[in-house]
Amino acid sequence: MNLPLHGSNPNYLYHALNLTMPKNVIDFSVNVNPFGPPKSIKEKWEEWFSVIEDYPDPEGRELLRLIAESEGLPVSSILLGNGGAELITLIGRMLANKYIGIIQPAFSEYEKVTKASGCQICHINLSAPDWKLDLNELSEVITKLDAIFLCHPNNPTGTIQSSVDIRHLLAICEANNCYLIIDEAFYDFYTDEVQLSDDIQCSDYLIIIRSLTKMYAIAGIRLGYVLANEWVIKQLIAYQPEWSVNALALEAGKECINELGFVQKTQRFIQAERERVQTVLKETGYVLSDSQVNFFLLKDPSLGNQRPLLKFLLKKGIVPRHTENFPGLAGGWLRFAVRKENENNRLVEALLQWKQET
Amino acid sequence: MNLPLHGSNPNYLYHALNLTMPKNVIDFSVNVNPFGPPKSIKEKWEEWFSVIEDYPDPEGRELLRLIAESEGLPVSSILLGNGGAELITLIGRMLANKYIGIIQPAFSEYEKVTKASGCQICHINLSAPDWKLDLNELSEVITKLDAIFLCHPNNPTGTIQSSVDIRHLLAICEANNCYLIIDEAFYDFYTDEVQLSDDIQCSDYLIIIRSLTKMYAIAGIRLGYVLANEWVIKQLIAYQPEWSVNALALEAGKECINELGFVQKTQRFIQAERERVQTVLKETGYVLSDSQVNFFLLKDPSLGNQRPLLKFLLKKGIVPRHTENFPGLAGGWLRFAVRKENENNRLVEALLQWKQET
Repeated sequence: MNLPLHGSNPNYLYHALNLTMPKNVIDFSVNVNPFGPPKSIKEKWEEWFSVIEDYPDPEGRELLRLIAESEGLPVSSILLGNGGAELITLIGRMLANKYIGIIQPAFSEYEKVTKASGCQICHINLSAPDWKLDLNELSEVITKLDAIFLCHPNNPTGTIQSSVDIRHLLAICEANNCYLIIDEAFYDFYTDEVQLSDDIQCSDYLIIIRSLTKMYAIAGIRLGYVLANEWVIKQLIAYQPEWSVNALALEAGKECINELGFVQKTQRFIQAERERVQTVLKETGYVLSDSQVNFFLLKDPSLGNQRPLLKFLLKKGIVPRHTENFPGLAGGWLRFAVRKENENNRLVEALLQWKQET
Repeated sequence: MNLPLHGSNPNYLYHALNLTMPKNVIDFSVNVNPFGPPKSIKEKWEEWFSVIEDYPDPEGRELLRLIAESEGLPVSSILLGNGGAELITLIGRMLANKYIGIIQPAFSEYEKVTKASGCQICHINLSAPDWKLDLNELSEVITKLDAIFLCHPNNPTGTIQSSVDIRHLLAICEANNCYLIIDEAFYDFYTDEVQLSDDIQCSDYLIIIRSLTKMYAIAGIRLGYVLANEWVIKQLIAYQPEWSVNALALEAGKECINELGFVQKTQRFIQAERERVQTVLKETGYVLSDSQVNFFLLKDPSLGNQRPLLKFLLKKGIVPRHTENFPGLAGGWLRFAVRKENENNRLVEALLQWKQET
């Protein structure tokens, strides 16, 4: 029985497990900001009706310029996309038929898009409990690779690498003419972020993917961008469909880029709430990943595969993200988003109940 | 000096021609419904704010089912896309390194995407004044082709082919294992439409592309679909980014599919208004294509390249679509959308003035 490959849209998960979906579910499988979109987007919503009629600016120039200013990079180093997923697909196409490394566990799209492009794939598996990079192993394997994907902060573990290790990894890649593709979809939930984007202009091999759909809760609109050198950006543009970024995404992006207060408020809330929930759950005997962002891995150490706990929670209307399609995790953990306080309390309650009943 | 490759976003055209863009322009370069989106979309707009936060259904099942019902086809024969442009790109990728025919003049994306996929390209040029298919020539050339693109009703001419000729073309393609890709982006502006979608289930080589952005004036949201046999659809899905169709497009699509009255009202208006404008312009000495849809080609026969007329109109805030990047037209015509009555009157007025002054 194959479970869905992604979180969100929980009806597919209930269907795959042959369970009836309760009327009210809390979806912990989707990692977007629990506050929803910033107020400015709600306020402009009515006005934006007028932009749906005409074609979006195919180059998205106004938003590009704002991102360029905010990143301190030239416009030619940035490409907007129809969500991070489109940008990953474009990169996969650029890497057609190459030898690709994927540092696992990681977002499953890297493997899907590179396979669809005829790539040969090498998984580099990091290990629990801390999933730290093994730079000796990487130095060896990267000599054979054309590109390597790193999801950082990591999805699904929520853990981070030290900035020293990441710069070391970049140096190894540069020395071996190997692209280092860092998917920073959740970088803005991590308060002590490493600013690798500064390295874009002096690197031939660094490619950074950013998403605006998680922090700004606009996953339904789709918006992301790539930072890379001009030569990489030109290759990706050649593969991108015309008008790929819709007109609402362009408008929403222009608002989001100014929402520094919203980002800081979210970061503070997520950190406090994550620590509160994690403390209780650890005390109850669960094992958790040392997440620095808005989701974490959890397991009941008395189980191997966590499917019994997954089903128990689904029946109660609590929707975890299974990990059966993550190499190295293989169902041995469940992933949960950090949501609002009352919702997190319902999760904690259900998990305590599971412990009492088993 | 290269002019922009597409209509809409007239600032790029003014910039390329080094002209100052007037404050109020009427954009005849974009072929969307002059009535704007159907009322139902305006009415639901506020409610749809709630769908932007979460990921769209990656399969778009509800909309797929509605289209399947309306077309009398199984869901497995349909793929939703982020506008027609994305679907053309996916088809281009499926055809990588093949030998491709493009019946010209036509929408320029067919050439762009097949070139990006390493295809060899053969242009089959139809001729003014009627741009009719030459089936003898096609029978010959198709023996060598793997796929052929036909834009029908044609963009940019607005002309149509007889249903007998199109079925003949399909038979030639079937006999030669050659995909026939018919881009029907404007099919619903043509009142006596040929229903080729009925042939999908008994054809291995027919691929139809539809767009909802023109008739329903939702170009800013992006939405289209492909009809083809299940085997083709499966190949295209493998290349499509996850969550490619955004949540608003899915909602809007579900409304549009029921808007039969809106479509009929639009068809009647466009036909009457197109005929009214064309009659006056022909009497004034312009030559026009025999368009059956919501745009037409026009030329001043005293000019070869129409750039002097293009510039004259742009200075008056009337934005035509140049044809300099259409093989076989090469700037010898201008394209105009049929817009609202008062806007069309301003176009007619400016064109009469040009005739008086030159």
